[in-house]
Amino acid sequence: MTKKTTSDGTTTIEAPTDLPVIRLAREFAASPAQLFRAHTDADLFVRWIGGEGSTLTLDHWDARTGGSWRYVGVSGSDEYAFHGCFHTVREDRIVWTFTFEGIPDGVCLETFTFEDLGDGRALLRSDSTYESFEARDAMLSSMETGVTDAYAQLDRLLAGDEI
Amino acid sequence: MTKKTTSDGTTTIEAPTDLPVIRLAREFAASPAQLFRAHTDADLFVRWIGGEGSTLTLDHWDARTGGSWRYVGVSGSDEYAFHGCFHTVREDRIVWTFTFEGIPDGVCLETFTFEDLGDGRALLRSDSTYESFEARDAMLSSMETGVTDAYAQLDRLLAGDEI
Repeated sequence: MTKKTTSDGTTTIEAPTDLPVIRLAREFAASPAQLFRAHTDADLFVRWIGGEGSTLTLDHWDARTGGSWRYVGVSGSDEYAFHGCFHTVREDRIVWTFTFEGIPDGVCLETFTFEDLGDGRALLRSDSTYESFEARDAMLSSMETGVTDAYAQLDRLLAGDEI
Repeated sequence: MTKKTTSDGTTTIEAPTDLPVIRLAREFAASPAQLFRAHTDADLFVRWIGGEGSTLTLDHWDARTGGSWRYVGVSGSDEYAFHGCFHTVREDRIVWTFTFEGIPDGVCLETFTFEDLGDGRALLRSDSTYESFEARDAMLSSMETGVTDAYAQLDRLLAGDEI
């Protein structure tokens, strides 16, 4: 039932044929609490979400249940922005909405979970539900490089013992 | 491609077989601006969303992009509560997340639009996207009576010229 499974050896991305969903799984040398902080602490988040060498600005960041967020990236002379609201922020689970402002009425619902694997490792899962298969597939094609770069940067941040 | 179409003569509810979505359409003797106010003004919203004779309390209501909401209903000795965040609040479009707290990790993404039909009528559409077909079908079975009652109450509120 899986349309596509991509793995760079560490990140698995699945796009099932029967649901407009992207399911991602990635192990980290981290605790669930560190992964939670990496996804909620403003200063940490900007240091990995764009990948190495990116410049991201948090226009707004209120990482609590009922809060909201917006960030802006710069690539050459282009700006690209994303925004949404935090439906749930708990230590084991974040649910937020996500819009890429290049497609202003497009929105998806994303759930992140942080699971302890023991031995200093934790599993990040993200499930992103789109309103259509077309919207899901459009995101899928641009997602792979982005998340691979971002998670490699998060690996480096975790190795530096700053989280 | 439609699993189920329900109509009480005024409300159409569709559940497609290929997407975990509920699509609802309902005409009102109203302007789009009146429908928008009925969905965003706290005092108005509590007067129709539970149907006639219901007692609802807004625990929290901040109807703007990036805001959040929670309401609690009482039925006999039972309380039932719902909450979410507002992803988008514009005059022609509201996007919010929706959780029934009886299923605390369940969440759906709902988009409401308000379209002018002329002659003093407007069309409300709501598209609700669930994370699975099971979650969608569970909601579908309890939704029909609820929305029919609520929209009949909204009709009465609109007729009273208070919106």
